[in-house]
Amino acid sequence: SKDWMVVDIHHIERTFKFKNFKEALEFTNKVGALAEEEGHHPDIHLSWGRVKLIIYTHKIDGLSEADFVLAAKVEKLL
Amino acid sequence: SKDWMVVDIHHIERTFKFKNFKEALEFTNKVGALAEEEGHHPDIHLSWGRVKLIIYTHKIDGLSEADFVLAAKVEKLL
Repeated sequence: SKDWMVVDIHHIERTFKFKNFKEALEFTNKVGALAEEEGHHPDIHLSWGRVKLIIYTHKIDGLSEADFVLAAKVEKLL
Repeated sequence: SKDWMVVDIHHIERTFKFKNFKEALEFTNKVGALAEEEGHHPDIHLSWGRVKLIIYTHKIDGLSEADFVLAAKVEKLL
């Protein structure tokens, strides 16, 4: 999907496709560097040619503004 | 868990804990390099301080010898 989905009013998620494992791993590292900068870390499901990001705020077990800030910054990595 | 679990006679999985995101990401990269060498790629669920590996053979949608070879080599990364 090219859009973020809101799931169970609990988290947002989006799957990014890549042409191989290497490119998916490179994207994972970019997201990881961004997460460290932001101090806000998504769950990252990396598999061959695919990265699924699941973003929510663990402290409240739900969505907060920081989640959408992170999602917007992820967009800029593409 | 310190052991691999066989789930639904379909895949093996194990969760590795780390003290922060950075170390979990470093382990992800080591597993990624190993996966590229082996030509066999696990699903990698990376989150803060945690990496869960899910290993199976996509072609048969089940377990094969290559899965256990990969698991054994992952052990050596620790």
